[in-house]
Amino acid sequence: MDVRAAVAWKAGEPLSIETVNLEGPRAFEVLVEIKATGICHTDEFTRSGADPEGIFPAILGHEGAGIVREVGKGVTSLKPGDHVIPLYTPECRECEYCLNPKTNLCQKIRTTQGAGLMPDGSSRFTTKDGDPIFHYMGTSTFANFTVVPEIALAKVREDAPFDKICYIGCGVTTGIGAVINTAKVEPGSKVIVFGLGGIGLNVLQGARLVGADMIVGVDLNPAKKEMAERFGMTHFVNPAEVEGDLVAYLVNLTKGGADYTFDATGNVGVMRTALESAHKGWGESIIIGVAGAGQEISTRPFQLVTGRSWRGTAFGGARGRTDVPKIVDWYMDGKIEIDPMITHTMPLDEINTGFDLMHQGKSIRSVVLY
Amino acid sequence: MDVRAAVAWKAGEPLSIETVNLEGPRAFEVLVEIKATGICHTDEFTRSGADPEGIFPAILGHEGAGIVREVGKGVTSLKPGDHVIPLYTPECRECEYCLNPKTNLCQKIRTTQGAGLMPDGSSRFTTKDGDPIFHYMGTSTFANFTVVPEIALAKVREDAPFDKICYIGCGVTTGIGAVINTAKVEPGSKVIVFGLGGIGLNVLQGARLVGADMIVGVDLNPAKKEMAERFGMTHFVNPAEVEGDLVAYLVNLTKGGADYTFDATGNVGVMRTALESAHKGWGESIIIGVAGAGQEISTRPFQLVTGRSWRGTAFGGARGRTDVPKIVDWYMDGKIEIDPMITHTMPLDEINTGFDLMHQGKSIRSVVLY
Repeated sequence: MDVRAAVAWKAGEPLSIETVNLEGPRAFEVLVEIKATGICHTDEFTRSGADPEGIFPAILGHEGAGIVREVGKGVTSLKPGDHVIPLYTPECRECEYCLNPKTNLCQKIRTTQGAGLMPDGSSRFTTKDGDPIFHYMGTSTFANFTVVPEIALAKVREDAPFDKICYIGCGVTTGIGAVINTAKVEPGSKVIVFGLGGIGLNVLQGARLVGADMIVGVDLNPAKKEMAERFGMTHFVNPAEVEGDLVAYLVNLTKGGADYTFDATGNVGVMRTALESAHKGWGESIIIGVAGAGQEISTRPFQLVTGRSWRGTAFGGARGRTDVPKIVDWYMDGKIEIDPMITHTMPLDEINTGFDLMHQGKSIRSVVLY
Repeated sequence: MDVRAAVAWKAGEPLSIETVNLEGPRAFEVLVEIKATGICHTDEFTRSGADPEGIFPAILGHEGAGIVREVGKGVTSLKPGDHVIPLYTPECRECEYCLNPKTNLCQKIRTTQGAGLMPDGSSRFTTKDGDPIFHYMGTSTFANFTVVPEIALAKVREDAPFDKICYIGCGVTTGIGAVINTAKVEPGSKVIVFGLGGIGLNVLQGARLVGADMIVGVDLNPAKKEMAERFGMTHFVNPAEVEGDLVAYLVNLTKGGADYTFDATGNVGVMRTALESAHKGWGESIIIGVAGAGQEISTRPFQLVTGRSWRGTAFGGARGRTDVPKIVDWYMDGKIEIDPMITHTMPLDEINTGFDLMHQGKSIRSVVLY
């Protein structure tokens, strides 16, 4: 079938909106009509060429929501008409990882997904000339129709608006999940969040959701303060306005360091600051941001020996098919907010504007509506 | 009173065996007759001058066992005749740290202890000329009598031999505790221990105690193999005999990486290897060894984002007054072994020989018998 897609032909080039071919779903695959998709920094990381594992040409996009239109042979958990959110971290419920309660990193289709292919090793997308176009993160939501493995689709309630819940496919779940699944922040905790962008705001509201007492936000941009307060931030720190050592300032502000700190910047220097501003004895620091290729984190081992721990999270430690529908419920029940974070919407034809707005720091999230 | 002590007058010099003055216990302090003390790498770290926080002159030693001879005003938990193990990590049971179940790092007397003083800010040791000599780690077990705060003494059973249980004052508890308190290793786990010295052997037997399935020991010295097997090691790896990348070799050996890895070397390069040979998704790496001043650990944040965690432990996460008596029981019940690790004993006059044996790699533990 013909589908409208934003194709990334080459690293560093704007996406090209065109009509491409999409083959129907094979066994254990599902055809999804994408109704909305967010534009995330990870898409830009790959588009720009910074991602050393980027493959081109590809149809990017991994933060979508849509409707099942056709299911392949063997698909039992979904049927046409179901509302779904594609999952770049699938949940097969039978691999060694899915069976270990300590991780969400299902490995069932990792190799083919990483290679831009469906689980059988082929692509469903081709150019009008028949040349293959690669999938991206197993989701390729920058197309109005896409094919996704059954295990990479979370079924969600049908009254939830696509233009908001698409964000649960990445940013919302990553931020809230880092708090509730990875860190397991307890009520009364002190939390510091570094970076108040699309992920950081969701860390803030995750911390509020679980009853943290003190929620410190750290960002160089004072314009972030107002929105961050709306999502639960109790104290704002602008490192540019701190005299002397930022770690010392934050340890003092939190009276000994935070119980939990989160890096949502991807900056390895900030990751160190986050670790070292965690409380001696029990503070945990969680890395959410993705660092540039080859960059390394470092600290003195004494920081760990005196009781801090350094951890990371991917997709907020969430098991998508199980957890994403719950987060959609939380949104519909008003337990979490999404609407104010969707600052811009646009048709697919204007998707490059969404990337521009991201670069200009004008958007929290731009969403493409099909 | 006159006591016989090994005095560290200056960084880098051998200890000097002489008679010094010891004042009796003040309020909340206890006079202990030390019957045996181990010689630990941490004593050597300070003696040699490598410890940037080393204070001289001091009476070193922190791995002792003895008998209470006199108690100061206000002491309620101990009486003359009680058998005790001094604790360089005290347990006051009332500070913010003691009341937080996530840490064992009691802070009640930390400042004075770090300054080589008793909690009231003075020293009980003086030279024959009346000049102060500093305490060390709050314990100063390289003297046949010492004064220790009540909260830094674990009361232990009276049938336990001093010349063996002194080792529970540091090495045994640090190694076993890293497994059971810090990592909380589960039965069936795969474990890798880097460094098969006095701490590493205790990590091995801790892993055996809790029912780990695969216990890999890594050491450059093949002579360590036999003793390590006695303490539970199931697989020995000599990095010098591994062709190619050690991490890849260990990940392959453990079929994906170990559930828990422990650094007992203090080498920051080994700490990185330990982290990276932990299993994706859930592997935890625990730093036990003390690194040289100013040295840093580093890795790519991707290692953490994909589910590994990096932690540390001090005194094996043990709360000394509570946990040390239990470990003494385990030794007396045959659940853990200590005897084969005490490779040398000597009188105080020959304590410098114990340091020589450590440097020559000939001893696991030398114990001074008073």
